[in-house]
Amino acid sequence: MKLPLDRRAREPLYLQIAAKLREQIASGALPEGHRLPPERSLARSLGVNRSTVYTAYAELKADGLLGAHVGRGTVVLPGAFQARRAGRPLEPLSYRELARRGSAEEPLPIIRDLLELASQKRILPLSVGLPDPALLPLETVRELQARLLEERGAELLLHSPTEGIAPLRESLAQLSRARGIACAPDEILVTSGSQQGLDLIRRVLLDPGDAVVVEQPSFFGALEVFRAAEARILTVPVDGEGMRVDRLEELLDRFRPKLIYTLPTFQNPSGTTLSLERRRRLLELAYRHRVPILEDDLYYDLRYEGASVPPLRALDAHGYVLYLSSVSKVLFPGLRVGWLIAPRPFLRTLALAKQATDLHSSTFGQFLLDAFLREGHYAPHLERVRKAYARKCRALCAALRRHRPAGLSFLKPEGGFYLWCQLPGELSSASLLARAARERVSFLPGEVCLAGEASSRHLRLNFSHPSVRELEVGVERLARALGAARAGRGAASSGASETAPII
Amino acid sequence: MKLPLDRRAREPLYLQIAAKLREQIASGALPEGHRLPPERSLARSLGVNRSTVYTAYAELKADGLLGAHVGRGTVVLPGAFQARRAGRPLEPLSYRELARRGSAEEPLPIIRDLLELASQKRILPLSVGLPDPALLPLETVRELQARLLEERGAELLLHSPTEGIAPLRESLAQLSRARGIACAPDEILVTSGSQQGLDLIRRVLLDPGDAVVVEQPSFFGALEVFRAAEARILTVPVDGEGMRVDRLEELLDRFRPKLIYTLPTFQNPSGTTLSLERRRRLLELAYRHRVPILEDDLYYDLRYEGASVPPLRALDAHGYVLYLSSVSKVLFPGLRVGWLIAPRPFLRTLALAKQATDLHSSTFGQFLLDAFLREGHYAPHLERVRKAYARKCRALCAALRRHRPAGLSFLKPEGGFYLWCQLPGELSSASLLARAARERVSFLPGEVCLAGEASSRHLRLNFSHPSVRELEVGVERLARALGAARAGRGAASSGASETAPII
Repeated sequence: MKLPLDRRAREPLYLQIAAKLREQIASGALPEGHRLPPERSLARSLGVNRSTVYTAYAELKADGLLGAHVGRGTVVLPGAFQARRAGRPLEPLSYRELARRGSAEEPLPIIRDLLELASQKRILPLSVGLPDPALLPLETVRELQARLLEERGAELLLHSPTEGIAPLRESLAQLSRARGIACAPDEILVTSGSQQGLDLIRRVLLDPGDAVVVEQPSFFGALEVFRAAEARILTVPVDGEGMRVDRLEELLDRFRPKLIYTLPTFQNPSGTTLSLERRRRLLELAYRHRVPILEDDLYYDLRYEGASVPPLRALDAHGYVLYLSSVSKVLFPGLRVGWLIAPRPFLRTLALAKQATDLHSSTFGQFLLDAFLREGHYAPHLERVRKAYARKCRALCAALRRHRPAGLSFLKPEGGFYLWCQLPGELSSASLLARAARERVSFLPGEVCLAGEASSRHLRLNFSHPSVRELEVGVERLARALGAARAGRGAASSGASETAPII
Repeated sequence: MKLPLDRRAREPLYLQIAAKLREQIASGALPEGHRLPPERSLARSLGVNRSTVYTAYAELKADGLLGAHVGRGTVVLPGAFQARRAGRPLEPLSYRELARRGSAEEPLPIIRDLLELASQKRILPLSVGLPDPALLPLETVRELQARLLEERGAELLLHSPTEGIAPLRESLAQLSRARGIACAPDEILVTSGSQQGLDLIRRVLLDPGDAVVVEQPSFFGALEVFRAAEARILTVPVDGEGMRVDRLEELLDRFRPKLIYTLPTFQNPSGTTLSLERRRRLLELAYRHRVPILEDDLYYDLRYEGASVPPLRALDAHGYVLYLSSVSKVLFPGLRVGWLIAPRPFLRTLALAKQATDLHSSTFGQFLLDAFLREGHYAPHLERVRKAYARKCRALCAALRRHRPAGLSFLKPEGGFYLWCQLPGELSSASLLARAARERVSFLPGEVCLAGEASSRHLRLNFSHPSVRELEVGVERLARALGAARAGRGAASSGASETAPII
């Protein structure tokens, strides 16, 4: 298929491709049922990226001109242009046109690639952020569930308060106390996972154009939420002690942000922990500039070594810290139960927003988590997973030192799920992903964790989900991919080391 | 307590009250720990509504000046003004100031009153929209759960795709076929309850100021969502055959709405069903004006008499109808599993929005519902609840005829959960609620179901949740309340009849 493209035109290539195809469908040159070339091969023949063709096809699908059929590829759909030519009033709805600005935007191509890799069983995923399924306390869940149904019956399946069921809010207040946080049950809002907590905060605080401070790198799920809100994302770099708080004040002065978003403990993705001194300084700055802090603290309980540092919320006596947590990393991600701690009047506002969103979180899931916490299963379970993940973290570090992936450096974290590694020389993380996939291993490219479109020399490796054996195999594969990449660039090998800056 | 108020000032009374109290706190006239009068008694002494005082107190709570303590009432909190006076930079954050416009708005006072009534055990709630807990298939749930955990283990507790687990999407496509809807599993998005479906549609389609057509009356949860979106809400009246489609075209012409929201079958609250002829006409209008329709169809399976009418989605061959449903009314409201049927490209857009909202719905809940549907438990369960609700519907109508609440008229619906009743004369529904509460019965005042602030002469009575005995008692109490209200107005009694317009 030939489509003349103008590479110097201001119109993006994908729109040019879509327009040419649309013409050919309208003229009948591409008749009903005609099968279009696969994205990959059209991309090759046009000399463009596959994602460009993907996006062009997506445009035409949104217009009802093309359809995808499993096993048949992309085909021209019947009827749309015929109907228009015959003067009939019926036109297909263009939901893409109807949709709000930004809402129909596809994720970055690199995220699509990652998802595609994740669905391939042959690939060993060091890219994920999941607990080890083998460690889930299934037997306890089974017992609690049966008993809850026996004791509570229909209550488990009926509606419950938007803020969360009272016993769970008590149990979570108790769990918070173990982290040094003094809060009352009515300062806790149960959410449908921590993602909902992020979304509610966005929904209640952020208008388009509002500024938000994030760490660079940061959790990509939060970046997505802030991007979708059309917020202005300001970044503060991270080093071995977490956020460079010394760089924060200038941003607060200049941009008067609505929110500071931070993952102070075992940061995702960098694994670093904000020092106590910086925590105090961060709070002072927030007080002085009257900016609330959203503390995302999913990994706090997963410390494997070193002394614990109190959460920001534990140090804050003035209601400036909104605290977000969940048991997704320690227990059951699929139950979708997280929580937010916030000052009462603001909690009320968040609850009103939640009510409009999903009325309340799963009643059953809440009772299950409450029973798990209330009956003392959490502490022994945590002990068990902490030991296992500490072992895996050591295993990953050891494998990296043993296989010496050319030039890769990393810093061992004191807890959490991730090892943040730096590539040597000019190699970009995204460009390594395809090679790694060929070696049947994946990782999270640093690009995904950056606000803006910079390329990254970092990659995030997960050690919680794979087995120790898989970590070993994964690193072997990664070493081969890196060797091939460097050979391709003619660079010298230098082996893995354990120092290096974080960003 | 004396607070001089200016009733002719443009400043609302609640802000005047808040300002006076703030002055007294700042001056020390109301010292730390001082206990303020209860809302009710301050309202009485100032001659204002209780909700005015409530809102004034809420303002000051949001500013951190007042706090509420169980058993102690509302007290002046320590510290805030002192800190300011001492010249220290720390001020409490005003989250109310930080929050986006509209997001901290309290629900209408009448909804607050309803919630308060709902929490009082002594009051018999004819106001709810819940299934009868005694009919929930607990034994089946128990068995399915135990077996699922046995067979699937950790999978139940882990992450699952945003669009929903594949088997459930198949089962829901199957369930849809039973309603005459031909759709593929990949046209179905599993949502966290139907409320989330509404919210996702809003999120993806509606910018502030966009027009939306709704029925008058309509489901108040949807009205809340559209209001929060700052949509322009256009109304079309409902009569015994559902939406007055003949009134629609003018609105489509003049306002070019983004969406038509309708509950065509056993409408909430009016109980009416859109006739087949009007359904076809509605679709034609949507096609001609290129406006998508959101069909909210929670009650479709709950028909007790008459011939079924196909859903709009079953009649639409052109992708104009977005179809929203859930099993909350037939099975388990607390599981939070609903679904949306939408054309594929738009489904993708909705899925992206959902991903940012809560990643995915409860994995466990989805597997449970799938097993329930897949193993054929739905049809016999439906049969059972249909019989029970048909009986209750008859019982409620009979009780209304027997106790003849003065002048109340109603139309018996062919299915659903509600009886929509019209009050005689000039009596407004909201004004009757307090009297009903004194008689220990509640209902949903029509005001809640109207866009705009009109008063309503209708009330919605639920017959699914109470027992037959409770329906009888509830109507007795309602008759007393109505008698007292009419006596208060000196009106003549006329007994209940079964005719009358719906709106």
